[in-house]
Amino acid sequence: MKTLHIDLGERSYDIRIASGLLDRAGEELKTVCPKAKRLAVVTDSNVMPLYAHRLIPGLEQAGFETALFEIPAGEKSKNAERLAWLWENLMDFGLTRTDAVVALGGGVVGDLAGFAAATVLRGVDFIQIPTTLLAQVDSSVGGKVAIDLAHGKNLAGAFWQPKLVLMDPDTLNTLPDKTFSDGMAEVIKYGCIADRDFFDFLSAHPSRAEIMAHIEHVLYTCCDIKRSVVESDERDTGARMILNFGHTVGHAFELAGHYEQWTHGQAVAAGMCAALRLGLALGVTESGEGMEELTNLLQAFGLPLHISCPREVLEQAVGLDKKNTGSQITVILLKEMGKAQPVKLEREGLLRDLEPLLGS
Amino acid sequence: MKTLHIDLGERSYDIRIASGLLDRAGEELKTVCPKAKRLAVVTDSNVMPLYAHRLIPGLEQAGFETALFEIPAGEKSKNAERLAWLWENLMDFGLTRTDAVVALGGGVVGDLAGFAAATVLRGVDFIQIPTTLLAQVDSSVGGKVAIDLAHGKNLAGAFWQPKLVLMDPDTLNTLPDKTFSDGMAEVIKYGCIADRDFFDFLSAHPSRAEIMAHIEHVLYTCCDIKRSVVESDERDTGARMILNFGHTVGHAFELAGHYEQWTHGQAVAAGMCAALRLGLALGVTESGEGMEELTNLLQAFGLPLHISCPREVLEQAVGLDKKNTGSQITVILLKEMGKAQPVKLEREGLLRDLEPLLGS
Repeated sequence: MKTLHIDLGERSYDIRIASGLLDRAGEELKTVCPKAKRLAVVTDSNVMPLYAHRLIPGLEQAGFETALFEIPAGEKSKNAERLAWLWENLMDFGLTRTDAVVALGGGVVGDLAGFAAATVLRGVDFIQIPTTLLAQVDSSVGGKVAIDLAHGKNLAGAFWQPKLVLMDPDTLNTLPDKTFSDGMAEVIKYGCIADRDFFDFLSAHPSRAEIMAHIEHVLYTCCDIKRSVVESDERDTGARMILNFGHTVGHAFELAGHYEQWTHGQAVAAGMCAALRLGLALGVTESGEGMEELTNLLQAFGLPLHISCPREVLEQAVGLDKKNTGSQITVILLKEMGKAQPVKLEREGLLRDLEPLLGS
Repeated sequence: MKTLHIDLGERSYDIRIASGLLDRAGEELKTVCPKAKRLAVVTDSNVMPLYAHRLIPGLEQAGFETALFEIPAGEKSKNAERLAWLWENLMDFGLTRTDAVVALGGGVVGDLAGFAAATVLRGVDFIQIPTTLLAQVDSSVGGKVAIDLAHGKNLAGAFWQPKLVLMDPDTLNTLPDKTFSDGMAEVIKYGCIADRDFFDFLSAHPSRAEIMAHIEHVLYTCCDIKRSVVESDERDTGARMILNFGHTVGHAFELAGHYEQWTHGQAVAAGMCAALRLGLALGVTESGEGMEELTNLLQAFGLPLHISCPREVLEQAVGLDKKNTGSQITVILLKEMGKAQPVKLEREGLLRDLEPLLGS
C-alpha cells in the first residue's frame, strides 16, 4: 500500500492506494472516523452493481450502520434538485454531525456527495473512494466539490477536504477504454507541467496494460504533483492555475461539442497540443522536441491531437464574450517539457494567435 | 459610530453600528471589497419597499453595479428551491469571484443570502445589513448560514463569515412591537448568560423607547458578548453552547406551536424562565432573586413566562425520540444571574425534572 499525506493543517488527510482496498475500507474508516455510527454511501447506477457489494459488507462488519444512495450515472445528476434530494435522504437516514458521507464512484459522485457533505448539518466528514482514473488523479486531491448550474459547470460548490481517500486500482479494470484514456489525458498533463521523468516513464509505457502494471506508481505520482500544488494554494487563488494546462483551449473544445461530442480528457488532450504549439509560436517553449513525444503518447491512448473550433466559441472560452472581465488572461504554457509557465496575454492577442492553430 | 472587531484570523471582520449608516453603505463597502464591481443585494418583500431605495443609490454612487433580488418575507423562503433560484440569478447578473452578495433584511434573508454567498462560485464575499433586532444581535455574529429542510430548520448550510456587518438602528423603527420584542428576548439572554451589569441596565430601561434611546450601546454589548463566545469556538463544537440558554426548552415550545403559534423570541423567553426554574430545582442556581427580575423584564416587553407543552413534544425536544443520540444532554443553566453554567444531565432525568415545570 502506498500512502500520500496531504498537509493542509487541521484539514490534512491521507490518500491510500492499494489493490483490494475496497474490501478493507471498513478498518480504514474506523481509524479516521472513530465517532461515526452511520455512513451514507453515495454511488451511481454504473458503479452500484459493480462495487457496492464489495464495499458495504466490510463497512457493516466494522460496526457502521450504512445506507446506499444511488444517482443516475452522468453529469446531468450534478444539479441542485439532486443535491436537495440527497440532503433530505441524509436526514431521513438520521445522519448526525459526527457521521460521514462516502463517495463511491467517479467525479460526478464525488462532487455531488462532497458538496452534500460540506453543507448538510453545516458540514460532516467526507470520504472519497474514487473508481475512475480521472477521479483518482484529479478530483480526489484539491477539495473542490460542486454542482452544475444552468450557466455552466461547477458554479455552486465549496472547498471541503476529505478525511480520507481510498483508491483501489482494481476498480479501473471495469472501465471502458475510452474512459480510461479520458483519465490518461490528465495523467499525461501532470508529466507535462511538473515532472519530465514521469513524462518519460509514461512515454516508455504507452498502453493501458503497461500503465496498469505500474498503476500504484502512476496514481501516487499524479496525486503527489497535485498535492504539492494544492498545499501551496488551497483556495485556488494563484499557484493552482498551472493545473489548467490544456484546459483553457480544452474548454473551447468542450463548448464547441456541447459537452457531448468530446469527453473532458479528449478536450484536454487537444488543448495541451494547442497550448504547446502556442508556447512555441510565442517563443515561451524553448524547444519543439516535446511536441512529437506528446503527440505520440496521446495517440497511443486514442486521444485527439486537434479539434476544430469556431471563432465565436473561442471568443467565449477566452472570456471575450463577457463584459468587465479585464483585458488580460493567464494561460499555462510550457517552458520546456515537465515545466509549466503561466503567461499573461491580452485576450484579443490570444484569440489572434490561437485562430490559425485551431481554424475549423 | 461604534465599531466592533471580530477576530477570526484571516476571516476577521468589523461590525459598524450607526444611525443613518444605510445611506452611507457605499463608502463602507468600497473599503472592504475594493475589487468588487458588482453587488447582488438580497432582500425580502417587507424590507424592499422600506429600505432598498435608501441603500441602492449609495452603492451605485460608490461605483458598484447592483442588482436587487427580492424573496417573499417569512421562514418559508429559506428552502432549497429558493437557494437554487438565487444561484441562477447571481449567475444571470454576471457575478464573479471578486464580487459580493449583500443581505438586507432579517434572519431569513441573511441565512439564505449568506448560504448562497458561501457556495456560489465556491464562495464570494458576503455583507450583512441586518434590519431586525433579532438579526442584529444574533444572526450577524457567528457566521452560521443555512436553509431549512423538510426535517427541520437550518439543516443544510455552512460557516461563512461576512466581510462586514452594517447596523443602522433606524431600521428598527419600522418593526412591529411583537418583532421588536422577539429580538429583546435574545438581548435579555445575553445579560442572563454573561453580563449582570447589562442585565441590570436592561431592567432599568424596560420599554422599547428606553431601549431605543440607548440602542447603540445595546447592540454593541450583545454583539460583543457573542463575539467573545464565537471567537473561542468558531465552528460550534463546545463553548458556543452557552448561547443556547433558554433554547432547548424553547425549542420544545416552538415545536408544540408548530413554529406558528410562538415566535422564536417568545419561545426563548418562556424557555429562559423554565431553565432558571430548573437551575433552582437542581441547586445549580444559587439564588432565586434573578427570577423576579427576569420575569419583570420579559413581561415589560410582552414576552410569555410560561408555555404549555405536551410530554411527547418535550421528549422530542430533549432528544428522547431519536435512536443513538446518547443518554446525556447538556443544558445551559445559570450559576447566578449573568453567569451561564453548562450542565450534563441524563435525558430521562431532564424530562422528569421539566415535566412539573411545564405540564399542559
